[in-house]
Amino acid sequence: MRLKNQQHSKWKPIIKQFEAVLGKNGVVQRKEELITYECDGLTSYRQRPAVVVLPRTTEQVAEVVKICDRNLIPFIARGSGTGLSGGALPIEDCVLIVTAMMRQILKIDLENQQVVVQPGVINNWVTQTVSGAGFYYAPDPSSQIICSIGGNVAENSGGVHCLKYGVTTNHVLGLKLVLPDGTVTEVGGQVPEMPGYDLTGVFVGSEGTLGIATEITLKILKTAESICVLLADFTSVEAAGAAVSDIISAGIIPAGMEMMDNLSINAVEDVVATGCYPRDAEAILLVEIDGLAVEVAANKQRIADICKQNGARSITTANDPETRLKLWKGRKAAFAAAGHLSPDYYVQDGVIPRTQLPFVLQEIENLSKQYGYRIANVFHAGDGNLHPLILYNNSIPGALEKVEELGGEILKLCVKVGGSISGEHGIGADKRCYMPDMFTETDLETMQYIRQAFNPQGLANPGKIFPTPRTCGEAARSEAAKKFESLERF
Amino acid sequence: MRLKNQQHSKWKPIIKQFEAVLGKNGVVQRKEELITYECDGLTSYRQRPAVVVLPRTTEQVAEVVKICDRNLIPFIARGSGTGLSGGALPIEDCVLIVTAMMRQILKIDLENQQVVVQPGVINNWVTQTVSGAGFYYAPDPSSQIICSIGGNVAENSGGVHCLKYGVTTNHVLGLKLVLPDGTVTEVGGQVPEMPGYDLTGVFVGSEGTLGIATEITLKILKTAESICVLLADFTSVEAAGAAVSDIISAGIIPAGMEMMDNLSINAVEDVVATGCYPRDAEAILLVEIDGLAVEVAANKQRIADICKQNGARSITTANDPETRLKLWKGRKAAFAAAGHLSPDYYVQDGVIPRTQLPFVLQEIENLSKQYGYRIANVFHAGDGNLHPLILYNNSIPGALEKVEELGGEILKLCVKVGGSISGEHGIGADKRCYMPDMFTETDLETMQYIRQAFNPQGLANPGKIFPTPRTCGEAARSEAAKKFESLERF
Repeated sequence: MRLKNQQHSKWKPIIKQFEAVLGKNGVVQRKEELITYECDGLTSYRQRPAVVVLPRTTEQVAEVVKICDRNLIPFIARGSGTGLSGGALPIEDCVLIVTAMMRQILKIDLENQQVVVQPGVINNWVTQTVSGAGFYYAPDPSSQIICSIGGNVAENSGGVHCLKYGVTTNHVLGLKLVLPDGTVTEVGGQVPEMPGYDLTGVFVGSEGTLGIATEITLKILKTAESICVLLADFTSVEAAGAAVSDIISAGIIPAGMEMMDNLSINAVEDVVATGCYPRDAEAILLVEIDGLAVEVAANKQRIADICKQNGARSITTANDPETRLKLWKGRKAAFAAAGHLSPDYYVQDGVIPRTQLPFVLQEIENLSKQYGYRIANVFHAGDGNLHPLILYNNSIPGALEKVEELGGEILKLCVKVGGSISGEHGIGADKRCYMPDMFTETDLETMQYIRQAFNPQGLANPGKIFPTPRTCGEAARSEAAKKFESLERF
Repeated sequence: MRLKNQQHSKWKPIIKQFEAVLGKNGVVQRKEELITYECDGLTSYRQRPAVVVLPRTTEQVAEVVKICDRNLIPFIARGSGTGLSGGALPIEDCVLIVTAMMRQILKIDLENQQVVVQPGVINNWVTQTVSGAGFYYAPDPSSQIICSIGGNVAENSGGVHCLKYGVTTNHVLGLKLVLPDGTVTEVGGQVPEMPGYDLTGVFVGSEGTLGIATEITLKILKTAESICVLLADFTSVEAAGAAVSDIISAGIIPAGMEMMDNLSINAVEDVVATGCYPRDAEAILLVEIDGLAVEVAANKQRIADICKQNGARSITTANDPETRLKLWKGRKAAFAAAGHLSPDYYVQDGVIPRTQLPFVLQEIENLSKQYGYRIANVFHAGDGNLHPLILYNNSIPGALEKVEELGGEILKLCVKVGGSISGEHGIGADKRCYMPDMFTETDLETMQYIRQAFNPQGLANPGKIFPTPRTCGEAARSEAAKKFESLERF
């Protein structure tokens, strides 16, 4: 009881200030309501925030951040909470700024092919809003029916259609930002290239450590005249990998090119029963081709030929939206299906140079055997972005630790072959310890320059991305926490 | 004589240190040799540097920068000196670090479609090196046979082929950097998306204010199966502009789409006599289409139809390399040809949303009449990147000032319609006074965060990009200059 009262007394004046800005409905502080916000999509780590706020406007976000800044309270932004690297994982005594009430599409400018949205807008809504006029928003994470554009910006999200069109950073033209001291600023603009430093580029993928985006200008693309999905099935993963290499080497850039292995194929067939994925295939390739009808027809033929040359047993193609959706259905459900294979699964996200695919897949199989955990492979093959799903049972003591170690080995393997420890899920809380495997101390310190410049008090999403409280940003955070405690606890 | 000796005594110990790193041949200090380095492509401003150094390796650049840092001497990097915004304009008492000796192609990795080059490598060499294997480097500034990749990185250069494939920043995967204190660091890597802040993106276009790139990893593209250039001529600039809009609205993204007006057409026909550009046309469009043969054929037809619907008098197309080159020849020579129309010309570089083309071109014509200077328009129509060439005679007193004022009015017009004051030439020394027209004080201060973080002493290319010595970076520079003077002048 004493502890509870202490907690209460410490936050009371702060909550009063939040309520003055947001109203009572805009502040969540009851323990049972706070449980929802204990973790994001990385469910293996949990921490209840002290308080959750639900702003609706840029001004409200700025006021909330100013209160945090004045009182040295760390704050963490959260979109839909679907992130897989724990980027929105709370820390003790933090304020969670949730953008779920910021769901307005503010401007639709079809002539200049752009829309302006609030950060809470769901990814899929953008395409839904403009598809009638023949446009779409390209980045499409598997979670696109629930994840928010703000979260996509924070994590620089990808998706199956990012091979040809690029990840989120390639589709953000400008941002209205609330900086960690509550200042409102704008970066980028309506035209793609702007003078001065590319702050839009720095902010996208900064995982909430540089401030909060409150208005986002997105580029939308014209829907292609023709779209075709091609499914090829192979009797070995290596053959499928070789087909991927040959397609790219032939100068073809499909809209997307995905691979799934036998374990994933059977998992999705068990769960969503597409009926299209041969259960005995060692690997399938799903290739989406878009463009003019003549171009799609020609590329379809070329891709089919390359797949056959690499030993594909069968080729299925789909031209109409319904059949295309059916072919994609299994891939989109792959993560969810993994949940049916095993009580728990851990998704890893690494990138390798495409040419290393066969070697790395073999090594992953070796690691799987060595550690004794099954690994299902689902990935963006075209850009070498792997998503090994490690299947385990969290109720077995020590399993999570072993699985994390195995995940770490996979990441180190990616780095060893010249790749990266994250393709589209971000570093967050989950992978910061692997940053030194990829970057030298100098490289990391150079990144910290940016963090310190934007976030000198270290209050914006502390403890994310960077491995250790190496420099003053993080040190300041501990100072901030100490000061806050001493201020409120007497 | 006294002054000269003072100058000499001040620099003597510094030059000795440079010579110890670079040898006597690596240091230029004779007045008559320094004249070459007084300006870059923006010839209306000149300032002789105190000394020029010619490093060959990353280590030598780092040593030179360390000497500058220890002695508080400002330094400015220079590539081929073709920049049009004065980004490599020296200041008094500075060291100019010229990359002309850093011209090695360090690595060619065709499998992963990338090359690693030193900054002095000429833009065109990259394509020449890989074209035999069926690849090319996309960004192609008009100066591509002489400009350096390092300069392209500094200014985030564009070119006629950047409509479809993007400007320099879209083609740089990674950088080895010498930071302003002489630390060597690496940003980006071999795969396109890397975790942490996008420092590669921040560095590209930072105009030498954050350090010096000494190794650059570039993405190369597969040469398209088929390329076609289409020339359409129009009896009004508005009709050509409407055709541009309609082509993009139809969902076609040509590799490049350029427009030239009557004055430019006649200038290039006078000088290079292509014989292909109708002298009585009010505007011509040059459209390059690439892709599969069937795709190019289909798009050629669609573009020709759209041009005709917008009143094009004639359509010429070229499929073979020789004829394509002939059609491009005039466009590539446009800036040089302007020099034959008038003793001097001033190239402006602004961006507008494409939909504003007809309005802005009309307004530029009005400004031309109002100020009494002829303006030739040559531009990347597809991405709304204007290059008005203002023709004048610099020997008439006050002419340059009027022309700069007129150029400024054009930039303000670009900003008014939602555009930008630079598309591909950078801000440099020339346009920093227009930054407040485009950005608020907060926006500029946010950019300065980055500069101060990387460049706290303010020694790397001081006085560029930002309008005033607003914050401590620049203030530090004045301090540095003062200290340096007081140190050496007693």
